[in-house]
Amino acid sequence: MTKEQTWSQRFESALHPAIARFNASIGFDIELIEYDLTGSQAHAQMLAYTGIISPTEGEQLIAGLEQIRQEYHQGKFHPGIDAEDVHFAVERRLTEIVGDVGKKLHTARSRNDQVGTDTRLYLRDQIQQIKQQLREFQGVLVDIAEQHIETLIPGYTHLQRAQPLSLAHHLLAYFQMAQRDWERLGDVYRRVNISPLGCGALAGTTFLIDRHYTAELLNFDSVYENSLDGVSDRDFAIEFLGAASLIMVHLSRLSEEIILWSSEEFRFVSLKDSCATGSSIMPQKKNPDVPELIRGKTGRVFGHLQAMLVIMKGLPLAYNKDLQEDKENLFDSVNTVKACLEAMTILLAQGLEFRTQRLSQAVAEDFSNATDVADYLAARGVPFREAYNLVGKVVKTSIVAGKLLKDLTLEEWQQLHPAFAADIYEAISPRQVVAARNSYGGTGFAQVSKAVMAARIQIGTRD
Amino acid sequence: MTKEQTWSQRFESALHPAIARFNASIGFDIELIEYDLTGSQAHAQMLAYTGIISPTEGEQLIAGLEQIRQEYHQGKFHPGIDAEDVHFAVERRLTEIVGDVGKKLHTARSRNDQVGTDTRLYLRDQIQQIKQQLREFQGVLVDIAEQHIETLIPGYTHLQRAQPLSLAHHLLAYFQMAQRDWERLGDVYRRVNISPLGCGALAGTTFLIDRHYTAELLNFDSVYENSLDGVSDRDFAIEFLGAASLIMVHLSRLSEEIILWSSEEFRFVSLKDSCATGSSIMPQKKNPDVPELIRGKTGRVFGHLQAMLVIMKGLPLAYNKDLQEDKENLFDSVNTVKACLEAMTILLAQGLEFRTQRLSQAVAEDFSNATDVADYLAARGVPFREAYNLVGKVVKTSIVAGKLLKDLTLEEWQQLHPAFAADIYEAISPRQVVAARNSYGGTGFAQVSKAVMAARIQIGTRD
Amino acid sequence: MTKEQTWSQRFESALHPAIARFNASIGFDIELIEYDLTGSQAHAQMLAYTGIISPTEGEQLIAGLEQIRQEYHQGKFHPGIDAEDVHFAVERRLTEIVGDVGKKLHTARSRNDQVGTDTRLYLRDQIQQIKQQLREFQGVLVDIAEQHIETLIPGYTHLQRAQPLSLAHHLLAYFQMAQRDWERLGDVYRRVNISPLGCGALAGTTFLIDRHYTAELLNFDSVYENSLDGVSDRDFAIEFLGAASLIMVHLSRLSEEIILWSSEEFRFVSLKDSCATGSSIMPQKKNPDVPELIRGKTGRVFGHLQAMLVIMKGLPLAYNKDLQEDKENLFDSVNTVKACLEAMTILLAQGLEFRTQRLSQAVAEDFSNATDVADYLAARGVPFREAYNLVGKVVKTSIVAGKLLKDLTLEEWQQLHPAFAADIYEAISPRQVVAARNSYGGTGFAQVSKAVMAARIQIGTRD
Amino acid sequence: MTKEQTWSQRFESALHPAIARFNASIGFDIELIEYDLTGSQAHAQMLAYTGIISPTEGEQLIAGLEQIRQEYHQGKFHPGIDAEDVHFAVERRLTEIVGDVGKKLHTARSRNDQVGTDTRLYLRDQIQQIKQQLREFQGVLVDIAEQHIETLIPGYTHLQRAQPLSLAHHLLAYFQMAQRDWERLGDVYRRVNISPLGCGALAGTTFLIDRHYTAELLNFDSVYENSLDGVSDRDFAIEFLGAASLIMVHLSRLSEEIILWSSEEFRFVSLKDSCATGSSIMPQKKNPDVPELIRGKTGRVFGHLQAMLVIMKGLPLAYNKDLQEDKENLFDSVNTVKACLEAMTILLAQGLEFRTQRLSQAVAEDFSNATDVADYLAARGVPFREAYNLVGKVVKTSIVAGKLLKDLTLEEWQQLHPAFAADIYEAISPRQVVAARNSYGGTGFAQVSKAVMAARIQIGTRD
Repeated sequence: MTKEQTWSQRFESALHPAIARFNASIGFDIELIEYDLTGSQAHAQMLAYTGIISPTEGEQLIAGLEQIRQEYHQGKFHPGIDAEDVHFAVERRLTEIVGDVGKKLHTARSRNDQVGTDTRLYLRDQIQQIKQQLREFQGVLVDIAEQHIETLIPGYTHLQRAQPLSLAHHLLAYFQMAQRDWERLGDVYRRVNISPLGCGALAGTTFLIDRHYTAELLNFDSVYENSLDGVSDRDFAIEFLGAASLIMVHLSRLSEEIILWSSEEFRFVSLKDSCATGSSIMPQKKNPDVPELIRGKTGRVFGHLQAMLVIMKGLPLAYNKDLQEDKENLFDSVNTVKACLEAMTILLAQGLEFRTQRLSQAVAEDFSNATDVADYLAARGVPFREAYNLVGKVVKTSIVAGKLLKDLTLEEWQQLHPAFAADIYEAISPRQVVAARNSYGGTGFAQVSKAVMAARIQIGTRD
Repeated sequence: MTKEQTWSQRFESALHPAIARFNASIGFDIELIEYDLTGSQAHAQMLAYTGIISPTEGEQLIAGLEQIRQEYHQGKFHPGIDAEDVHFAVERRLTEIVGDVGKKLHTARSRNDQVGTDTRLYLRDQIQQIKQQLREFQGVLVDIAEQHIETLIPGYTHLQRAQPLSLAHHLLAYFQMAQRDWERLGDVYRRVNISPLGCGALAGTTFLIDRHYTAELLNFDSVYENSLDGVSDRDFAIEFLGAASLIMVHLSRLSEEIILWSSEEFRFVSLKDSCATGSSIMPQKKNPDVPELIRGKTGRVFGHLQAMLVIMKGLPLAYNKDLQEDKENLFDSVNTVKACLEAMTILLAQGLEFRTQRLSQAVAEDFSNATDVADYLAARGVPFREAYNLVGKVVKTSIVAGKLLKDLTLEEWQQLHPAFAADIYEAISPRQVVAARNSYGGTGFAQVSKAVMAARIQIGTRD
Repeated sequence: MTKEQTWSQRFESALHPAIARFNASIGFDIELIEYDLTGSQAHAQMLAYTGIISPTEGEQLIAGLEQIRQEYHQGKFHPGIDAEDVHFAVERRLTEIVGDVGKKLHTARSRNDQVGTDTRLYLRDQIQQIKQQLREFQGVLVDIAEQHIETLIPGYTHLQRAQPLSLAHHLLAYFQMAQRDWERLGDVYRRVNISPLGCGALAGTTFLIDRHYTAELLNFDSVYENSLDGVSDRDFAIEFLGAASLIMVHLSRLSEEIILWSSEEFRFVSLKDSCATGSSIMPQKKNPDVPELIRGKTGRVFGHLQAMLVIMKGLPLAYNKDLQEDKENLFDSVNTVKACLEAMTILLAQGLEFRTQRLSQAVAEDFSNATDVADYLAARGVPFREAYNLVGKVVKTSIVAGKLLKDLTLEEWQQLHPAFAADIYEAISPRQVVAARNSYGGTGFAQVSKAVMAARIQIGTRD
Repeated sequence: MTKEQTWSQRFESALHPAIARFNASIGFDIELIEYDLTGSQAHAQMLAYTGIISPTEGEQLIAGLEQIRQEYHQGKFHPGIDAEDVHFAVERRLTEIVGDVGKKLHTARSRNDQVGTDTRLYLRDQIQQIKQQLREFQGVLVDIAEQHIETLIPGYTHLQRAQPLSLAHHLLAYFQMAQRDWERLGDVYRRVNISPLGCGALAGTTFLIDRHYTAELLNFDSVYENSLDGVSDRDFAIEFLGAASLIMVHLSRLSEEIILWSSEEFRFVSLKDSCATGSSIMPQKKNPDVPELIRGKTGRVFGHLQAMLVIMKGLPLAYNKDLQEDKENLFDSVNTVKACLEAMTILLAQGLEFRTQRLSQAVAEDFSNATDVADYLAARGVPFREAYNLVGKVVKTSIVAGKLLKDLTLEEWQQLHPAFAADIYEAISPRQVVAARNSYGGTGFAQVSKAVMAARIQIGTRD
């Protein structure tokens, strides 16, 4: 089975079948085939351009590679374990198609720079797709925010009611996180989109190749400056996994909130049937599977980040076979992030509805306006910490008395402090409490309206 | 597509197709099908045994489940995404086969206890297989050790030559690690082999089931004492992943050594062609891919452990959909550990050869006998730290002079300290240096011979 | 500063001060001093016992070490960076106290086996303390459970109301997790309590030591069988960190529930002032800092586990300096787990109160009795899946009608299915719903009463 | 002890002492005090500037804060556990110093935005320091590279000799890694240097503050656009930990190589006494502790990254106490990276010497020129794969014959393929093998000379 190994001439006997299976990456690196073909076509074109092979040979190689692409699209290309990896599989099939000239393709390159090129081309595409998905996610957040600028929702710290918020303001916090994710991926992209092609096995090559030419053909921004670094660097993968982990952190936080909001206790949102699932045994159940699953998949991506760091730790230069393990981590992380972004976007857009009545009721029935009483006094010259202490006391006695702050009489207020006047009631109404937090970036309606508009501009969807 | 969902009656509309895809686990939990069938057969038998269903119904269910098993073995069972998971896929097919009685199978259980049962049955089997693989790995280590009791190899600390060793002693260190792995898996097994079946969705069931009966049918050692705990516990998976991570730590250490040993600089082993691979560009290369890949895969298993911990952190009781993420982690870790153990065992048994001549040369040409000089003096009454300091000086001057300790004249020795006599030369010969470390568990040949014998007994392969 | 290094004779020049600082572990390994002294005393006693040193010398060494212990207790022992580590600091001070005989202490051992011994003695003690803390935590859980066998609380899956529970049953789920933690630590202990003393630097020693004698003096259960393994094994630390991570998983889950329960929306518990904190700005706030902090510290322990695995990956035998990094991980994990167990136990015992009125109201106002309707029909011969589907429909129409199941008339029930009779109302009352789940390990009151009693017996606190 | 809590008015009883200890962060967040004072001074100045307090009050607060700074510098500021955290400690002391006006400082802000501000100010400084350290590290690499452009060293893939390299080229691979680290920290900096001050507890404030004014005073580049996001975002810390992990990956790879190079087998470098340590028992040992410790500390930083991700996963908005756990992670990672960069820079600059004679010998005695034979043929029209196969055969027969390629006669070469001529000997000499890899970024001397010059320019140290 394995006697056809491309590198078998220095070897007397074939690989043990179990070892061949263990080593082979063709089972997963086939995902890179399109990028491998494209990269090889650029390489062939460069070999012809620089005169290392003849123009005719170049054309033959490019055409043969294109034929493999067709065969792959038509489901006719099925390399086996004995091909070891996608690179050998392609080279071997190429030689079947174009004959001996196929044996010239690997001139002046190595699998080490080749796989690095393929992986970067793949990841580059995936980053662009994820950035696009982030924009769609942001778009849905802004759409909902726009409808809910004046919808109030309890704001929490420590999961305790803190101060009421504009629901739009709450949702736009996630817009900002996604914005950072989008920008961060842009930074990662700059370090992904660098060509290692032509670094050879580790040391460059004796042929007079033109690395900038292949880089240009493949739309790379630049080339690796050091061949050893070019073939052994996986920073770009780790950096992407870091950015992916942060996307998952953000999605997990939103997921947690949706799970809370859809509970019987919160009842802030209702889930639509199209985005919820039932129980096998409890007929009444409607479960928020989507956010739960996203929350769970967060661990998966963190695990891949950690795995990739572990793989790289302490490896001597240059390429080591350990690096083969980078691919499944990366592929699964890409697929997970994309699936989670898609599912969350669908959930927000089509799968949940805010219960505005319940929300407006919620913000009226707690002490989340207490800070405003302290601020009221502080604005009237009482040192803040003193005002704060006074309000602490009144909250304590109100709880005992089973009252809310709005239930106190003006007399009671004035006993507490003479600075209180009749406008205290307005100052502590939920709507005013929100409206008044009009500092830059605050939840005040005026601020939030501007923020919605700025968000639309940022994602370029303002009509 | 999704309108057939088993839990659809409380729902008005079907799942969004992308959400259905996102939620479905059938793509990977099909791996549990045999365990699901076995578990369901035990459940059906218990339902009949306790009179919850009739004996005939019980037989019908069991036979129907057996038919699905046949269909699966014959490659005829192909549930789609709309089946959601293996449990619903089986229940649905069962009802097609046996008719309405199939709808009785899910009486008195939930998918929550069912999937817990399946996963434990699966992991239980895998642990036994891995324990068996550890025994084979240990067996190969002992076989090689037995041939190399008197083969010397440099011993290292800080990767600096420290004291020479019996090669057998070195290999038996890995035997001991594997022994701990084997014992640790035994401990894990005890916490895996507990039945959650009958815990229901979370609270037990109103039916008069017999959980101990199903536990016995399925060879569980005991049953979960608390139903909430039973459906939401994944300690057993995490504990297994911890044990798996330690196996990988050990294999990665041995891998590192084999990679070092097969380098041009060490040349302690030669790799056979059947377990090495070549380069796509450098014709002379023979690469230790197997140990490199094992070392790399270590990160993979660590990542899965970490992922599983992250998944469980902070989940409120009882079952949450996040738990669905336990399976791929577990399956991939099991497959990785098994593949690595198999590959390492083949490599040791068939893929490498120790270069004994190079080894015996190596131990003769360094200062790794310096401790023995200090010990020589200490045994003659010189306080150890003083002896140590004396020897430090002689090493320093020898290095400058380009000499080894064996090259010093007796006169030089005696100038250093009058306690030296002619027997110092014997005391610092590599063979004697090794032989003399005859403390319990030390590298002295007498100790190592006993250790080889003890190892054979431990793994039960002494003829 | 560093010219006094114990190992300086082979060296011509002193360590660079920054490097000395970088290398030194005395800043944190001083935590091991008591264990180091005890271990050294046992070693000295063995040296005398075996005749390697004289009885008088042995006594001098033991007394000198005891004097250092006194000095340490009195706050008079302050080794500096130049001591490098606790072992050298002790040996140096010892020689100051007892003179040249102090230089004999290090005969037949190395820091490699010494630090391994110290660390195991330390961890052994800590495990016993943590096991004791787990028992106290379990004790508090049982105490609260005993008071709340008949208190009902909503049970959740997917954070959706699923089926009502006995509060005691819910709490006992955590008892079971702690029980596994306790047992797991027992297994870890067996692999911690093994003596590496006498393994020497890596190869054993040329002296006729008695390792079993020191092991017995130090109450180790056994000795390492292989000297290389003995000095380079850190499995025991990793295994402990795995067990510690699982304790944190469990505490984080309980923490999450307490945070939920103390929210305005759940209001299942009230926090007492002694275990809650306020806000710097919002006077009304009472925050569940303790469970939040425990939940956060979970990441800390997971991180230490990961760190330790990473440290060990791919290290060649035997000792490498990387191992010095094991200590801070271990110490901080031990301290974190102990602090969290203590805080959680105080919180449960003194810091929160269940609001039983709110709880009993909660269980009466949802559809968490729907499974019981399906079970009711199934018990009357309707195939479960059919019964389930019928109930799904009735839940759907009831939600639309704004009714609960208890609000349906008998006629409505019988229209749904003729098997319904007047006893359906009793069957779906919350108390009966709980009582009826009387399968083994279920939430039925009879089961829970037995479970409380069994728990008491298990922790040995039954009077 | 704890009755003085700043937030105690709503509370009736004091914190349990153990809980107070558990909650308090003053033990480690005192490290932020300078930043806290600076941030508070900017806040006070803004309060005066906007008229929220009077100019005199503003001056009093700023002077009082400056006095605390002096006290701290003089070692006179020692807040206890009862201060809870650095923020309360400062506010309390301030009020002691300036009287009631001190109670006005906390107007219009919360600890949530305050600690966010402090942490970003801290990290901003640290990033600049680390960037400077990276430049120093790069400077040393270039210095050594410049001396070794023509020094040859074996190049490896899979730790097998692959192709010889210019030592300068090898070292410059690390220069490139450090360059990416430097640039990456620049990107992180942009997301660190954003002001959350004025976000309040979560919702902004009712006071007419000027967030851009404080941002400008504190040299922040911009302000958080959303107050909820501002107080609950820890992306910047995670992103820094990711960048720190990559620095450690790079240092660990270089460390591994130095450990290998200083082994008896490689002997490529010799360690100087000032940067190596000895053994407690083996007098001859000289250990590469610095690179070992750096390699070990890599796990530590990975662990902190993982911890921080775990902490953030699934936290609902906005601030939760879990976030308090961000600090120790961050501080220890900063300190570790700085210590490792310092130690590695010292080691390279002062602690090791390349053994050039050994290196030049090494490259002459292997088959690492085999690719050049294949390239030789390929350049003469033989398809590369065919040439590769021919050379594979000749390597195999040479090994059997105990010859190197340079030992083959011209006749033997020509029997292999008629294209060989006398210039083959020159083509496979180590120097020519290196010189010929003159493709862009390759190891050819001309390339490497340019790379050294470019590196100097990049770090701005070209005279």
